[in-house]
Amino acid sequence: MVNETQHSCSASSSSRSDGGGSSSGSESSKDNSRCSTPVLDADRHERLREKMRRRQDAGDKWFSLEFFPPRTANAAVNLISRRVLQAGGPLFIDVTWHPAGDPGSDKETSSMIIAYTAVNYCGLETILHMTCCNQSKDDITGYLQKAKRLGLKNIMALRGDPAGEEWEEEVDGFNYAIDLVKHIRNEFDDYFDICVAGYPKGHPEAESYEADLRHLKEKVYAGADFIITQLFFRPETFLKFMKDCQAIGITCPIIPGIFPIQGYHSLRQLVKLSKLEVPQEIKDVIEPIKDNDAAIRNYGVELAVSMCRELLDSGVVHGLHFYTLNREVATTEVLKRLGIWNEDPRRPLPWAVSAHPKRRVEDVRPIFWASRPKSYIYRTQEWDDFPNGRWGNSSSPAFGELKDYYLFYLKSKSPREELLKMWGEELTSEESVFEVFTCYITGEPNRNGYKVTCMPWNDDPLATETNLLKDQLEKVNRRGILTINSQPNINGKPSTDPIVGWGPSGGYVFQKAYLEFFTSSEIVRALLKVLRRYELRVNYHIVNVKGENITNAPDLQPNAVTWGIFPGREIIQPTVVDPVSFLSWKDEAFALWIEQWAKLYEEESPSRMIIQYIHDNYYLVNLVDNDFPLENCLWQVVEDTFELLN
Amino acid sequence: MVNETQHSCSASSSSRSDGGGSSSGSESSKDNSRCSTPVLDADRHERLREKMRRRQDAGDKWFSLEFFPPRTANAAVNLISRRVLQAGGPLFIDVTWHPAGDPGSDKETSSMIIAYTAVNYCGLETILHMTCCNQSKDDITGYLQKAKRLGLKNIMALRGDPAGEEWEEEVDGFNYAIDLVKHIRNEFDDYFDICVAGYPKGHPEAESYEADLRHLKEKVYAGADFIITQLFFRPETFLKFMKDCQAIGITCPIIPGIFPIQGYHSLRQLVKLSKLEVPQEIKDVIEPIKDNDAAIRNYGVELAVSMCRELLDSGVVHGLHFYTLNREVATTEVLKRLGIWNEDPRRPLPWAVSAHPKRRVEDVRPIFWASRPKSYIYRTQEWDDFPNGRWGNSSSPAFGELKDYYLFYLKSKSPREELLKMWGEELTSEESVFEVFTCYITGEPNRNGYKVTCMPWNDDPLATETNLLKDQLEKVNRRGILTINSQPNINGKPSTDPIVGWGPSGGYVFQKAYLEFFTSSEIVRALLKVLRRYELRVNYHIVNVKGENITNAPDLQPNAVTWGIFPGREIIQPTVVDPVSFLSWKDEAFALWIEQWAKLYEEESPSRMIIQYIHDNYYLVNLVDNDFPLENCLWQVVEDTFELLN
Repeated sequence: MVNETQHSCSASSSSRSDGGGSSSGSESSKDNSRCSTPVLDADRHERLREKMRRRQDAGDKWFSLEFFPPRTANAAVNLISRRVLQAGGPLFIDVTWHPAGDPGSDKETSSMIIAYTAVNYCGLETILHMTCCNQSKDDITGYLQKAKRLGLKNIMALRGDPAGEEWEEEVDGFNYAIDLVKHIRNEFDDYFDICVAGYPKGHPEAESYEADLRHLKEKVYAGADFIITQLFFRPETFLKFMKDCQAIGITCPIIPGIFPIQGYHSLRQLVKLSKLEVPQEIKDVIEPIKDNDAAIRNYGVELAVSMCRELLDSGVVHGLHFYTLNREVATTEVLKRLGIWNEDPRRPLPWAVSAHPKRRVEDVRPIFWASRPKSYIYRTQEWDDFPNGRWGNSSSPAFGELKDYYLFYLKSKSPREELLKMWGEELTSEESVFEVFTCYITGEPNRNGYKVTCMPWNDDPLATETNLLKDQLEKVNRRGILTINSQPNINGKPSTDPIVGWGPSGGYVFQKAYLEFFTSSEIVRALLKVLRRYELRVNYHIVNVKGENITNAPDLQPNAVTWGIFPGREIIQPTVVDPVSFLSWKDEAFALWIEQWAKLYEEESPSRMIIQYIHDNYYLVNLVDNDFPLENCLWQVVEDTFELLN
Repeated sequence: MVNETQHSCSASSSSRSDGGGSSSGSESSKDNSRCSTPVLDADRHERLREKMRRRQDAGDKWFSLEFFPPRTANAAVNLISRRVLQAGGPLFIDVTWHPAGDPGSDKETSSMIIAYTAVNYCGLETILHMTCCNQSKDDITGYLQKAKRLGLKNIMALRGDPAGEEWEEEVDGFNYAIDLVKHIRNEFDDYFDICVAGYPKGHPEAESYEADLRHLKEKVYAGADFIITQLFFRPETFLKFMKDCQAIGITCPIIPGIFPIQGYHSLRQLVKLSKLEVPQEIKDVIEPIKDNDAAIRNYGVELAVSMCRELLDSGVVHGLHFYTLNREVATTEVLKRLGIWNEDPRRPLPWAVSAHPKRRVEDVRPIFWASRPKSYIYRTQEWDDFPNGRWGNSSSPAFGELKDYYLFYLKSKSPREELLKMWGEELTSEESVFEVFTCYITGEPNRNGYKVTCMPWNDDPLATETNLLKDQLEKVNRRGILTINSQPNINGKPSTDPIVGWGPSGGYVFQKAYLEFFTSSEIVRALLKVLRRYELRVNYHIVNVKGENITNAPDLQPNAVTWGIFPGREIIQPTVVDPVSFLSWKDEAFALWIEQWAKLYEEESPSRMIIQYIHDNYYLVNLVDNDFPLENCLWQVVEDTFELLN
């Protein structure tokens, strides 16, 4: 049978991954295959069906979210921002497939690219829908190959709606979802996890409910791993369906599809498409309030919560699948009230991991891209191997060029006008640039009353952790130490610490203090004199746009600046300051002055010339204080530098 | 020219390896090759000639020691015990070559095997002498190939003494040392570092002092990397020789050979062999005291110290080579008085590293072999790669069988009679075994008045570190928790700590508490109950001789139990508790009961049956306390276990 589990290396005892239990065996356990890298986080090493099973075994309830590809690139950028897709910790998301919308293309808004972005840049387990009717085998195979190449691992195999009014079976063509399931298993063996649709009331075109159940069983036996159902309005509908499925021998997970009613019109449209009938008791409530959106949503949430509670309480439902219609409010509300919304999902590593299969061993990155993780993923996408254990184990890294600064998921989310308000309509001196940096740090409005919520080097507002350093950062930015990255030293805080914690519980995390900034050559000259007094303690690397650089890194070795010690595991050191990668980062860091800031202004304008001057003459500096158990000395280094200058 | 340096990956800026200085460059430094592993210790990555140069650049004085292969296997075991060869921190040792003694064979006492053992098991940079006269090219090539295969990297190329009285040049044969130098460079390119001999008074067979200098220059130009001189009696002899060498263009290092006079007869014999003349002023002192060994040695030390001081003060001598005649007292005395004897050489890693080139990246080992490092090296000698960075990065390790328990450098250094005195002429019960373990821990004499200075699992007396745990160890051994390995928890002590420190200065070292012991199945049953209360905190692995085992190691992952954080470097974690390797170790650990202990007694004797019973019925247990910042809980675990039993 095709849908038997092939254990991945970590799966065999993954339910034990947080201690507990014990495995016993004879000497043959010597030959046990095990992961070539420490499994910090079993999730990264399991396929979706294994994750489902593990959650079920552990008694953890979970949820998943369905999205459709947005119409515009801007909407796509909004959707893939971490907040929307990842909030609350879904087990997976799925992306629908609309044959009319060129779903397999390279467009920013295609199903394929949205799913790829979710996996690769947002680190989300993702199911890509695919419909097969009216498609050639070659086209389908092409889509599947592309999906595999892009790192997608899960397909929802659907028939889709026939193009014409009258539909006829094609000989040797794809007539039903089962044909697609078989095709995937034939052509791609066990590579993909396959999901199929179930119809709690029976498919509207099926001869009968019973006949539809038999078709479902055939789809599963042809290789599907689990079932997501069409929406329904009463919990007993699903529970009966599930019982009937089990009765005829369907044993795979069956996940109820939940549709929180969000508005009168969306309900009507969905009902029309799905050919479902809305129960009278629901109609009775809705009709009188049909023009009151808020009231309908409140009722929809209420209804969904009570239905989900009944499903979860039944003991046979472990996960809930939500039809979000790309709107988060109602679903979030339902999940919060059910208590399965995870306010603060634990970070497996200090940075957001990618879910691309190629990257699943990745556990070390240079600190430089900490605020630009998408750029890092983009520039390393062609790598065959990803560093794990030690950065220095990989040969000299070759970073791809960041050619297109307007690549849709990398570009700034703010329009030009907004950026000008934040960064200054008109710059009059280097000091006006210092001011922008200072306002970003303090959160105070700038002289025109606007808050600076992002910078060319930071897509997002300041990290909570950075707040620990706020006062000192403000002081130095005012004086022309233009900070773009920093972290405090941490000497063994619990891995569950809400601000600096990461990784499994029971561990301890550590950091060396880090500071990275642009500054003038005058300050650099003084700084270098001061650094002599800190020679064994502080590692530094200073470079200008031309690549002239000076460092005291021994043998150009990387310096681990974040690490964690966990029960029963090898040391994890997810962040390094790597002198070799720093020279690739400086290209990007200097270019951002021009591409994101200078280009806001007219050519030859004084504002543009000020940014250009900084780009041409300033240095990019990084400093590491190696004495993590002592008080961070980097502020003293900067203080001493200013003192020397006075 | 062949003796140009080929920089190894770490050599280019190795003089910077402890911070200081800075390297600058343009963007091309992106392409800088760098080590694939962190260079914790430049010594391991440099060839001998590079080490010499680095020491000279840094102004560090060094010494080296010459030994001849001992006659008996027992003497060889004594010689290669770490104490003799490594004490004081020589830059290298060299092993002489005596054609009559089958120097290239696999005998325990051959020059080849002694040098191999020094490199591989003692971690010493070693020069193997080789003489060429009366040898065929094939024989010499064979020796060199074998030396290379065994990990030897340095050859002292000598002519050697002709076999017969009258010596004639052979056409196309090896007539002079220079022929061997050329042969090595022809056949092995730059693989070996080559040393040649210099004669401060000229070679006795040379036409003249000047002619001999010219020959020396030819040897160097043919590819020798440095020169060690014949012994001499007056510092001015060497200083003149050195000046004359430099005058004719010899620029490589010239190392004076020092012979501390140790006795009347050894001096006479050496002088006869080397055809040197002892200066009258020395004869005048020695003759009157020739029967007083102590007086002669004192005088010899005095003379050597004053000569070495003059050489070192000259500013042109950076290293001193000592002809030890395998006796350590006089040389040690001289070195201590000169202040270049290193009482406590810094440990680059917590365990003694091997100097075999294959192992130079090795920086992780399982803790189990901590007291049997030679056995570990032996059992892993066939590995192609050695774990570095992370143990788990290597695939499942296959350990060679430890077939021959009497392999000369693995066998116990104590004869049977001595072992019986320590471990009991007659055992009457398991308790008498407990007593032996307890006496080993406490250092108190056993009931027959003998101290237990070694155990089958520990070649050496208790480590200083283990003393930190002495009281608790004593208590548990008395009650049948027979400990064979342990370490205390350490939460960030300086890397220079005299007891637990290792690695470069400026770092911090950490440990998780570890305890490994044999114990009865009754105690194991209680222990397992107690361990439930420590589930997230303590990792355990319990196995009997049959391999029945139980562990809570998540996914059979290794647990790092020793690690260090250093300035400008990635994390180093040299010791792990690896559940997979533990099953190989248990074979060895159980076998040692029989091979080293039971076999001391007659078959069927009660003593032997007691050991056999323990071997057959006891369990080997390891425990790790993951909460290294808290007080070690393993003693409480044991305490709770005994409480449960009462």
